[in-house]
Amino acid sequence: MDSSSLLLSGGKILTPSMNIITADIHIDQSTGVIEAIEAGLDPSRFETSLDVSGCVCMPGLVNAHTHIAMTLLRGYSDDKPLNAWLREDIWPVEAQLTTEHIRAGTELGLVEMIRSGTTAFADMYFEIPETVAAVDAAGMRARLGHGIVTVDKEPAAARADIEKGLTVAQEFQQAADGRIQTAFMPHSLTTVDDDLLADGAERATAENMYIHLHANETSDEVNPIVERTGERPIQHAETLGLLGPKTFLAHGVHVNMDEIATLARTDTAVIHCPASNMKLASGIAPVSHLREAGVTVGLGTDGVASNNDLDMFSELQDAALLAKLGADDAAALPAGEAIKMATADSAAAISLPGGRLIEGGVADIAVVDLDTPHFTPQHDVVSHLAYVATGADVRHTICDGSILMRDRTLQTLDAEAIQDTAETAATDLLARIWFWFSYLCRASLKDSHLPLSRESRPSGREGIRQLLN
Amino acid sequence: MDSSSLLLSGGKILTPSMNIITADIHIDQSTGVIEAIEAGLDPSRFETSLDVSGCVCMPGLVNAHTHIAMTLLRGYSDDKPLNAWLREDIWPVEAQLTTEHIRAGTELGLVEMIRSGTTAFADMYFEIPETVAAVDAAGMRARLGHGIVTVDKEPAAARADIEKGLTVAQEFQQAADGRIQTAFMPHSLTTVDDDLLADGAERATAENMYIHLHANETSDEVNPIVERTGERPIQHAETLGLLGPKTFLAHGVHVNMDEIATLARTDTAVIHCPASNMKLASGIAPVSHLREAGVTVGLGTDGVASNNDLDMFSELQDAALLAKLGADDAAALPAGEAIKMATADSAAAISLPGGRLIEGGVADIAVVDLDTPHFTPQHDVVSHLAYVATGADVRHTICDGSILMRDRTLQTLDAEAIQDTAETAATDLLARIWFWFSYLCRASLKDSHLPLSRESRPSGREGIRQLLN
Repeated sequence: MDSSSLLLSGGKILTPSMNIITADIHIDQSTGVIEAIEAGLDPSRFETSLDVSGCVCMPGLVNAHTHIAMTLLRGYSDDKPLNAWLREDIWPVEAQLTTEHIRAGTELGLVEMIRSGTTAFADMYFEIPETVAAVDAAGMRARLGHGIVTVDKEPAAARADIEKGLTVAQEFQQAADGRIQTAFMPHSLTTVDDDLLADGAERATAENMYIHLHANETSDEVNPIVERTGERPIQHAETLGLLGPKTFLAHGVHVNMDEIATLARTDTAVIHCPASNMKLASGIAPVSHLREAGVTVGLGTDGVASNNDLDMFSELQDAALLAKLGADDAAALPAGEAIKMATADSAAAISLPGGRLIEGGVADIAVVDLDTPHFTPQHDVVSHLAYVATGADVRHTICDGSILMRDRTLQTLDAEAIQDTAETAATDLLARIWFWFSYLCRASLKDSHLPLSRESRPSGREGIRQLLN
Repeated sequence: MDSSSLLLSGGKILTPSMNIITADIHIDQSTGVIEAIEAGLDPSRFETSLDVSGCVCMPGLVNAHTHIAMTLLRGYSDDKPLNAWLREDIWPVEAQLTTEHIRAGTELGLVEMIRSGTTAFADMYFEIPETVAAVDAAGMRARLGHGIVTVDKEPAAARADIEKGLTVAQEFQQAADGRIQTAFMPHSLTTVDDDLLADGAERATAENMYIHLHANETSDEVNPIVERTGERPIQHAETLGLLGPKTFLAHGVHVNMDEIATLARTDTAVIHCPASNMKLASGIAPVSHLREAGVTVGLGTDGVASNNDLDMFSELQDAALLAKLGADDAAALPAGEAIKMATADSAAAISLPGGRLIEGGVADIAVVDLDTPHFTPQHDVVSHLAYVATGADVRHTICDGSILMRDRTLQTLDAEAIQDTAETAATDLLARIWFWFSYLCRASLKDSHLPLSRESRPSGREGIRQLLN
């Protein structure tokens, strides 16, 4: 018997070319690598054996753009356009976030990802040491960075934020036994000053770092850049030294054909976020044009506050459906291509291993239970994974050879405790926001008591509005 | 103790005005009516009591347009535009459907609906007696009709199909103790001849029947009608006598403002099918314009073959997201309105009771389990139901006061047997299609053996294509 060997036996396997075969998977848990994919392996040779008959083993999903701590803000503000949503609702709340809130939101997000078969992600947020510790404990894979915002900051503070972005990317590169990689992550071309962007990009490139930023998300942000610089955003990003094979941009909704050509020429990847782009009415990204031009297009949920979940199955279905509408072609982004976007292409876009089940590749695997009415009849399992599956269909999640979820029970994290902690943290966060609002607006308050009990008041923004009336 | 009384205790309730309150629900199972919604009801007074603490009780979802037997074709053909998809893939298969296939697909669809909290639906298909029997046994509520198609038929056969549509609507009205209602259901303005449509509409109206048809689904179908009749499709439908307060039209994607005004003036309802409209690249229905004009807009999944599931939570999320994109306004169709579309508005559109939890109203209820990481934190339960929930979150489903699913276990149907039967029926259907193809194309076949074993051949269309090469 091989020590630290894991067998997945009796199931189907989704191959990198999107075929379904019947075979077993032999995993070396000490290296986290798939040793063999072949039929009829003998279970007695393996230390651990999972019977996955009735299931399909597919690559763990790769969420290539999110802000995981924002899981704590799920449902806090909806049904508003990006600018108002950010400035009126999200940023004021984020200003009140403590390290504890961020840890609570991050752990909640990790639980949700593992439960829905995601094994790797790229994340831009604050308090990266917290994220590093949480990802390490969870056993997942991630590319992390500090989200740099310099607008409205004093020069020294702005400069310090750039330094922090660079330092964090250096410090945590290869953390968690190499499962954690990093990137330099300025928020966007409109929220970081040009001189700092250029300086940061130059230093990040010199240090061989990856670069991640938001770009061309809404039409509103394009014109000001054109007016200010005379360049379209993507051209301006190239001028600032931000593009290249180590750069991945989130959204890329409002990119014209010249910008698509620039992205292709510089080998810059784009992360498509269809649910967020629909929810904030940002628009439809030209996914078919980007892919035809040779741009690597990954897939991300964006933060939960604009999604409102981290379920990559739901996201890849949105991508497949929206691509058809965007291209006016029902054949655009067919089922298998949408799954590739959520797995192999996402992994390539953020340069993490995984996204394909191959011998010698990392053992990052989502095991999906097919034995259910909504996957019946099984005319086409690939179609079902793209158009029907949700995260709730994932039975086991494996990352780097370790079982993170087994029969829907998390193995590395205490899901129940994390859920309770998150609920408590959210209540505390709301209390802080109420305190802050009441401090600023005391004169206009009908009632100066702070309504600390969640039950006694309307929820979220509505409650604050009522308090301020 | 009241006999045949059911208590749902300790949960939250979604009110018709989309507020969340904490109260118990008292149901009289003999009448199927909600007797009382109030806090602190004594469980000992009730014959049956369900502890729904940690859950929210919401109206059972109402799927206002589907073709339920097509659940048997899930994943059979994807990623093709409507016309090619129908004519090359779906209609040839449908020509091979036997009564047994239709029964199997219908029962599979009923299982899927109940599992995802749907309690009522409108269905257009064939072999309505089968559907009536299956819906009766399942305990659901439905408005059913025979889908009339007369193009390419001999005059006598075309006329017979109209007669069948009228006869079926008369025969099964008020079946299943009144849970089943009917409608006259010509397929569309392009698949039924004008003279037959006009005659059928006149007789249906004289008989006080409801009318349901597809309209303005793709841009391709609009121009031929304009060229042939000089009228836009909706105007032409009015000329034929098809519009009115008892008519509901599926899709309504390509309707102009004049047509919207006609729909509003005639009080004709529209059933929005966002997933199907995206998947077939049909377009974005002007839902905001329709609603602003006062048109009742319900929500439907369409058939599974173009969706690919019957999950109304996923559908209402698609509706909420797509409305924002269509209106270029992130405030369009906010969470609560999307839920209303899937419940009260759908029920109104197809004129079935339900869609709202009120005292004296029917007890058609979906009980959604909120105690899960993806509904954490609970800033806003209405937001979670619209933007996060899937059918898998439904714990109990109640229709007409009867428990159809309890703790995810179906009470009226044998889900496991139905799943097995559906898989067998699908295999049999594929074998018939292969036989039919081999009969038509014997000369061109590489191999005249019929590959009856599912495992030994590629699935669905791909297999047929390979066989024909």
